[in-house]
Formats: sequence, C-alpha cells, structure tokens
Amino acid sequence: MEKRNAFYAQSGGVTAVINATACGVIETARKHKGRIGKVYAGRNGILGALTEDLIDTSRESARAIAALRHTPSGAFGSCRYKLKSIEENRAQYERLMEVFRAHDIGYFFYNGGGDSQDTSQKVSQLSRKMGYPILCIGIPKTVDNDLPVTDNCPGFGSVAKYVAVSIREAAFDVKSMAETSTKVFVMEVMGRHAGWIAAASGLAREGEGDAPHIILFPEIAFERKRFLSRVKKCVDQYGYCVVCVSEGARFKSGKFLADAGSTDAFGHKQLGGVAPVVADMIKQAHGYKYHWAVADYLQRAARHIASKTDVEQAYAMGKAAVQFALQGKTAVLPVIVRTSNKPYRWKIGSTSLARVANREKMMPRNFITKDGFGITQRCRTYLAPLIRGEAYPPYRNGLPDYVRLRNVPVPKKLDTEFQI
Amino acid sequence: MEKRNAFYAQSGGVTAVINATACGVIETARKHKGRIGKVYAGRNGILGALTEDLIDTSRESARAIAALRHTPSGAFGSCRYKLKSIEENRAQYERLMEVFRAHDIGYFFYNGGGDSQDTSQKVSQLSRKMGYPILCIGIPKTVDNDLPVTDNCPGFGSVAKYVAVSIREAAFDVKSMAETSTKVFVMEVMGRHAGWIAAASGLAREGEGDAPHIILFPEIAFERKRFLSRVKKCVDQYGYCVVCVSEGARFKSGKFLADAGSTDAFGHKQLGGVAPVVADMIKQAHGYKYHWAVADYLQRAARHIASKTDVEQAYAMGKAAVQFALQGKTAVLPVIVRTSNKPYRWKIGSTSLARVANREKMMPRNFITKDGFGITQRCRTYLAPLIRGEAYPPYRNGLPDYVRLRNVPVPKKLDTEFQI
Repeated sequence: MEKRNAFYAQSGGVTAVINATACGVIETARKHKGRIGKVYAGRNGILGALTEDLIDTSRESARAIAALRHTPSGAFGSCRYKLKSIEENRAQYERLMEVFRAHDIGYFFYNGGGDSQDTSQKVSQLSRKMGYPILCIGIPKTVDNDLPVTDNCPGFGSVAKYVAVSIREAAFDVKSMAETSTKVFVMEVMGRHAGWIAAASGLAREGEGDAPHIILFPEIAFERKRFLSRVKKCVDQYGYCVVCVSEGARFKSGKFLADAGSTDAFGHKQLGGVAPVVADMIKQAHGYKYHWAVADYLQRAARHIASKTDVEQAYAMGKAAVQFALQGKTAVLPVIVRTSNKPYRWKIGSTSLARVANREKMMPRNFITKDGFGITQRCRTYLAPLIRGEAYPPYRNGLPDYVRLRNVPVPKKLDTEFQI
Repeated sequence: MEKRNAFYAQSGGVTAVINATACGVIETARKHKGRIGKVYAGRNGILGALTEDLIDTSRESARAIAALRHTPSGAFGSCRYKLKSIEENRAQYERLMEVFRAHDIGYFFYNGGGDSQDTSQKVSQLSRKMGYPILCIGIPKTVDNDLPVTDNCPGFGSVAKYVAVSIREAAFDVKSMAETSTKVFVMEVMGRHAGWIAAASGLAREGEGDAPHIILFPEIAFERKRFLSRVKKCVDQYGYCVVCVSEGARFKSGKFLADAGSTDAFGHKQLGGVAPVVADMIKQAHGYKYHWAVADYLQRAARHIASKTDVEQAYAMGKAAVQFALQGKTAVLPVIVRTSNKPYRWKIGSTSLARVANREKMMPRNFITKDGFGITQRCRTYLAPLIRGEAYPPYRNGLPDYVRLRNVPVPKKLDTEFQI
C-alpha cells in the first residue's frame, strides 16, 4: 500500500481531553512514516477540508505534540457543521475529493460525537459512491457520554470528575454557613438531553447525609411539589440542601425548567440558566437563603482536574484509530469495552459509524433511584472508575502550562474558492 | 502564667484554606500543653460561645487535625453575626464572660475578615472594661483580599488561582468554538466591593491576545457603549472575546449591573448573576453567540486547586496567633508583610485589631489600566506570587479526601440558656 497523507479534525463541543486524542493520532502516525506521510489537521473541523484550510502538524515539535496530552480544548479549532447527503449536495463531496486529491489524503480521522460521526459516515461514502480511495475512521468524543455502543466517551470522565469534586467542595462550604446564612446551594451542569453529567455529581455522596441531596435529571419529569418538599426535608434533617440540576431538566410537558423563569429587561425570554430558576423556586416556597452556580464551559475545559482514566482512554482512541487505518479498515470507530468492574479493566473494540451516527444513549432508568432524585448502586459502579486517577498538567507561574501550537497552514494547491 | 483553655472560632464566608489556619492554631497549641490546656472551638463562630456550644478539639486525632490543612470550608461551622457594643448590649458580654469563666478560657482566637475582627476587638474589651482576664487575637481570613495593613489575606490566593486557571481553560475552549459557534464568554467572580478577585483573572493573560480580554471592576463605573465597542474590537481582532466581570460591577449611578437585568416570572427582580446580564447585553448589540458561567461558591471552596503560597500563609497565621498569645499580646492580629517581590519573600507582622476592624482595602487605581478593562504590571507583580505553587489534597476513589471532624461537644457547665 503506497504512502499517503492523513486528515485529522476535531468537531462539535470540545473537551478537556480531545487534544489527548489528537496527540494519540499524531504520535502514532509519526511512528508509521512508511505508510502515513503527513498529518494535516483541518482548521475548524470539516470546514478546513472544504475551504482547503489545512494545518501541517509536521511543523510542530515532538514536545509540542506531546503537550497536547495535557492541554484542553481543540488545538486546531472545532466546528458545529453538518454535511448534507450526497444526493442533496453533491458539490460538497466533489469539493472534498478535490481537496483530498490535491493533498494526497488517503486517511480521514474525524474526532467528535454523534453528529460529527454522521460527517465521518458521509465522507466514507466518497470511496464507495464516488470512487475516491480513502479510509474513514471516526474517533469518539463527547462530554455528554451519550454515544451508543462504547462503554463511555472520552471527555466525559473528566467533566464527571470536575462536577463531583466541585459539588463536594461547595457542599462543605454551604454546610459551614448554613446555621446563619446560606442553606441551599444549586449547581447547574451540562447535559441537554442525557443526565450522565448530573449523575456524576452523585459520586460525591459516599455516606448518609452527604451532598448532593437532590439530583434533577432530564430523564425524570420535574414535579415542583415533590421537589420542594424534599428540599425542606433535607434542610430540616441536615441543616442544608445541595441540588445538582441538569440544564436539560424539564417538566412533564417537555418544557425546560430554564424556560420557566424570568424575562429580561427587554421583555424576551430569560438569559439562560436553570440553577437560578430552581433556587428562586425554593426561595419562594421556603424562604431559605440560597447560592447557585453555573459552571458552563468551566466544567468541560477543566483539564487541571482531568480524570487519569479519561486522559488514557482519549489517547488510546486516537492511537487505535490510526492502527485501524493501517489495517485497512474504514467506516469504523474505535470504542471502549469494559471487561471488568473490580478491578476496572477495559479494552479497545470497534463498531461501524452507522451504528453511532446521530444516535443518543440515555441513562437507563435503573441508574436512577425510584424517587428520581439520586443514582443507584448500579450507576455508581458504572461511573466510579471513570473519574479515577489524577493527571495534573505542568504549571508555570502558578498556571497550567498549556501548549499553543504554531498551526502552520499547508500551502493551498487549488485556486478555487468554496462557499460554505 | 497559669495554664488556661483556648477558644477558637471561624467567622464570615469560609475559604479553601481557613481550615489550614485552624490546623496551625491547634497544632501549635498542642505543642504548648504547659500553657494552653484544651482548644475549644465555637460551633458556628461566636454563636458557639454565646450558646455554650463548644467543640472539644482534643478529641480529634493528630491525623484528623493535620487533614484540616487540605480540607476547604469551616470545619467548626461559621456565622454571619455581629456583636453589639458593650454599651448597647451588656448582657451579651456578661454571657461571654460567664461561658469563658465556666470553661476557664483565657485565650480567644477569632478567624475572619473585617466584620469578624470587629467581634474580636469587642471581646478584647472584656478584660479592659469588665475585668475578665483574656487575651484576644484576631486571625485574618477573606477571599476578597480587602483587609487593610496585611499585604494579602489568606483565602484570596486560592480563589485567585482558581479564577485565573478557570478563565484560561474556558478561553481555550471558546477559541476552539469561535469560528462557527460561541464567540463570547462571560465569567462572573466574587467581590461585591473590591475588584481583587476579578483582577486575579488578569494573570491568565500572559501575551497579546490572551484572555481575559476585558475585566469589569467594581471600582470602575461601567459604560455600556465603551464596553460594547471593546467587545466588538476583540471579536474582530481575535475571533472571540472573554470577559471577567465582578459581581460588584456597577454603573456610574452606583447601581449594580446585576440589578439591571431581568425580572422573573413572578415579576420581582432577577435571580442574581451579572454574567447573564452582560452576556445578553452583548447579544443585543452584536448578536454574538455567548456562554456564561457563575462560579459562586465553587471558587472559594476549590481546595483542589489551592495556591501553595496561600495554604502556607494560612497555616502560618494560625501558628503566629498562638505564639502572640503565648507572648501575652492581646487585641492584635498577625499580618503578612512582603519583604521582596523577586524572589517573593514574606514575613509575619502584627497590627492592632482597631486598625483592621470594619475597614476595606480597595484596589489602587494604578493597579487598573487607564482604559479600566485590565490590570497593570504593578498589579501583576503584586498578584503573581500569591497564586504560585500547587498544594493538592490526597484523593480517594477519584475524589479529594477531605476530613470530617467528629466535633464532640464539650459538656455544658451552665444551666442557663441564652437567646441570640
């Protein structure tokens, strides 16, 4: 098999460890110079391919590439962009072929979640439907942990660890203040559709009375009365109450709690944030002094508190993707297969892009307690190993020493423009 | 000097390192058993003294006390409670004397900020005005860094590190997404009156183009037009814009930005949070997609990312307080004196409670850039050493292993109740 170049890109919301995957791809490719020429990264995901905006990763030192392992976010830029089908927009695919041919790209690695793997799958049709020889490998990534088939998703373990650590720390704080001040703390976490991240907060609760006392999942219809009486019960029993609410928490009607709140000075829907809505609801009902937090990007970018397990799996997925390509596989995705809980053991498996693209994995009902406010032992057993281990980045001047790549562009070979 | 017992309590908002100070107090007192009998902690600050609700710290193992050094929040509970003057409420002071006498308390250590040191100062009058022999030592603590005299306050360095690290991480994230998604990120930090915490975010900016691009201080009157045009300039120049806003940011009129925003479904003032107000302001003017975060308690409880400098100073303040008492000092407070910037060196000084009680130290104007949106080199030189060094807590099951003390109550000796 002749030597050809590789295309790698990052897509969708970035994570604390997606660059560890990039590190795995590039370091592994560099070990097979006989088969893989250069690794060209797409600037801002697939857009980089469409606009011939490629980054020459061979211009980065081994040290810089290694530093990707401890650097959060997407070093090459990401995108939220979905390809139309070949039938709908053939021009897009012809453009991709034109760019790939110009740069002799024979390997396509696309690092993202369910929507992004739809892109990988469509690009894989280039060879089948349009005769352009390319091997397409997807690489899983998402903080939401909502990809099917794989036991868990790189990116999730670190946000899970951040959320569990943060809610434990905040709970210690609230407990100290509760006698004369704050009695209720509400923390909002990500997960518009699936409650995996909210569930992870439950790991902080290791004994009776520990926080979080209440978790609000998107999977469980919110009942105001039941919730409010549970809050009161907590405050009566423990002196304080800590709530973790998913941004996707909703009423039976399907309406998001976040939309139930305020309208701003200009009269349009409130500014986002379910935490303040829930906190105010409690204040109205019980008068407790409250504090609330919305971690937002802080939770998914928090490489400083990343899970060692997550970092290792993210790197391994990138490495496996390149190995799959070298084995001549295409239209597949490496996945994490759990082989044992105690001790936690996992291996790398493989699945077809078709089985992953555009699918979402919800929390099983038996991961949530009957009352809907907590996680079961089964859920705890699943989640626990994913946050295990610390993988601290190096520090300089008291701050994490994250790498900024040079991102040297590959000289354009086409004189044609392409409108996105 | 005969052997007497000591009273120690924590007051006001807790921090990531106030327990490190408690550790310094108790470990040092235990080394002087000939002079100091037992250390009784007040449950929930001064309230514990008034209600004779004392905790016997001698019932805690050396290991548990040592673990306070890496445990955030107030292990004995804190309070927001201010004593009236002796003239206004003599009964309160008679009650304190009654409790102190019953438990042979000859040393009073009060760990808190400006309001709390007002309490220390008043209690110190017991000996002068009411003839009860007691040595009163204040111990500085506040995340706001707004105490006078001391170069900085234990508690601030760690929240400063958290804020600088978090905004750097979020900025990496936004930069990755900016091309097709989020272009503006707004992070709200604490500091109702003084902009020290907001200023600390500026440490993340080490080069041209680095975030944060704009800092909004309570000390600088907010001008909507000037702010919005600066945001646009950033997005045009860098492709994205990261803003750190202090919860105390206000208009020229003195009105808080947080009060300028929305009203909730019930028609009353919005739920708090200046970040969503600022983010929405930007959306209205420029239409940029935004994300915002409110760290709230997460920032002051984040022991997992505490500053080593801060932890050491917090411990040293507790140790020094006990040494002051053993020297027979009273109505004083140990402070941090900076003796050198490069290399950073500091020593322990002393000041009178009167000079600290109820005073606030604002940011000097020359710490803020002329345009009011950033920090000067002078400010950077001051802040930099305070976030230096990491002091990670031990982990168990992927979570920080924080100690929960037994907090065994001291048997009551009085049959009298006291109404707070």
